[in-house]
Amino acid sequence: MLLGIGDDAALWQPSRSHRSAISTDMLVEGVDFERDAMTLGDMGWRAMAANVSDLAAMGARPVLATVALGLPQTLGLDEILELYRGLAQCAASWRLTIAGGDLSRAVALTIAIAVVGEVRASNVKTRSGGRAGGVLAVTGALGAARAGLELTRRDETVGAALKEEALRAFRRPQPRVAEGRFLAASRNVEAMMDISDGLARDAGRLAAASGCGALLDAVPVAQSARAVALARGHDPQRFALAGGEDFELLAAIEPRAFAHLARRYAARFGRKLERIGVLRAEPGIVWEGATLEELGWDHFAPPGA
Amino acid sequence: MLLGIGDDAALWQPSRSHRSAISTDMLVEGVDFERDAMTLGDMGWRAMAANVSDLAAMGARPVLATVALGLPQTLGLDEILELYRGLAQCAASWRLTIAGGDLSRAVALTIAIAVVGEVRASNVKTRSGGRAGGVLAVTGALGAARAGLELTRRDETVGAALKEEALRAFRRPQPRVAEGRFLAASRNVEAMMDISDGLARDAGRLAAASGCGALLDAVPVAQSARAVALARGHDPQRFALAGGEDFELLAAIEPRAFAHLARRYAARFGRKLERIGVLRAEPGIVWEGATLEELGWDHFAPPGA
Repeated sequence: MLLGIGDDAALWQPSRSHRSAISTDMLVEGVDFERDAMTLGDMGWRAMAANVSDLAAMGARPVLATVALGLPQTLGLDEILELYRGLAQCAASWRLTIAGGDLSRAVALTIAIAVVGEVRASNVKTRSGGRAGGVLAVTGALGAARAGLELTRRDETVGAALKEEALRAFRRPQPRVAEGRFLAASRNVEAMMDISDGLARDAGRLAAASGCGALLDAVPVAQSARAVALARGHDPQRFALAGGEDFELLAAIEPRAFAHLARRYAARFGRKLERIGVLRAEPGIVWEGATLEELGWDHFAPPGA
Repeated sequence: MLLGIGDDAALWQPSRSHRSAISTDMLVEGVDFERDAMTLGDMGWRAMAANVSDLAAMGARPVLATVALGLPQTLGLDEILELYRGLAQCAASWRLTIAGGDLSRAVALTIAIAVVGEVRASNVKTRSGGRAGGVLAVTGALGAARAGLELTRRDETVGAALKEEALRAFRRPQPRVAEGRFLAASRNVEAMMDISDGLARDAGRLAAASGCGALLDAVPVAQSARAVALARGHDPQRFALAGGEDFELLAAIEPRAFAHLARRYAARFGRKLERIGVLRAEPGIVWEGATLEELGWDHFAPPGA
């Protein structure tokens, strides 16, 4: 950063060899989050993480963010600082600068972030590059964030470590920037996006943008999500399929290159690049022999969510 | 733009020879604007104009914007489209692309914009470059936007053309991008900012950022502002001094260069670069022989505002 908060605008020198990327997200209390489910610090972290994840999905490295806050009169200075600390901690963890901001009064706490990053032109991944036959894979197990949200609503007798895993995934999600850049550097990764609204919906979006459908045959379920799903009498795979805000990445990969890429991924990150299915020419997302529509899923409300 | 709305992030190729600039602003209904004073199209225009003006103040050319909207359930699709049209018309007028967005439900209509622009490194102007002795000048007459706001609250018997000027200044403000780039290209312009909160407050900010005070001796008053101020029994100069959201630019200029720059400005824009006073070493803003503090102005509520 050449010039930060305090003037009319912030300045930076973009890399000469890269493209710039920008994304924005607005979170509103009572709509996108509830204050009794998490601290204000968690809210700040999650808002920043959601934006960083959008850049990770393009293979970009985040550089800076602007933060506009709408603050209700009931919020005290200590609380505003706690919120800001969460934003700043997440930004620092992924090495981006909070370059500018704006404050306004508001009825409900509102967090609007814009995040700017950089990506080598040859590495840019979109949602639309997938082809029939491509392997669909995710960067990690799913469902933990949803399990954490459920635990804030009603406690369950699951082990303390699993509870901790779920609550942490919900309150302090980890956007997959390094994983996104690793995958983006491979020309065998044909499409990519982040999973913010649940795998079922987001796989449908990637497939549709690529002019394909998809057959899903296995969803990797986080241990904590499995425990909470079973305690609630849900099928763990469906629980993970519907759960949102895991911020893992979903990629479509050239089928002959998958095994080699997955070995390199495991060696680099100590986690599996999980194969979940395959893109195919027929439209629709098929799960356990039926399309999600046939199973009664719609875009806004998957069953059992 | 290389890739716009629809993917996780938008992409563009920044100029190799320029710095990038970013600014953000959040406007909340009931706080920053009232819906009975203007149409939704005007709201969209003003929100975009306020952001564009922040870049103009740095000498930057706007390139793109992201728009995050918090929409109350009471707002119909036609109204949302009208709001968006106002945003898009303003963006098109200053040739910037709306590159990305986000929608959320909200209690009160909320508009959060981030705008990105470019400026040659040698042209960057900040608030802090002013020096004692520098001429303070503004890019045009002030007070019309405030006059327009007052007219939406209570009508006055002023001429139709003046009424139109005032309402237009309030509802469809014109950020001074060309003027800002012209001034930024001169090395004799030592500091610059936009006037969004009224000249009195913003001159105080520029002077303080430059480690100076200022002596203000004449405020150019828009004709419509003069008419409305007189109809209300206010001193026109004080009315213009306190009025916000004119989005003219305030510059500090090397004193020996002022006359020549003002001639070139008038030839280029057909308006006067208006001298309003001078920066000086003593802190505080002096107006008619007393500091603004002595006259009872505070940062938030100038008298008669």
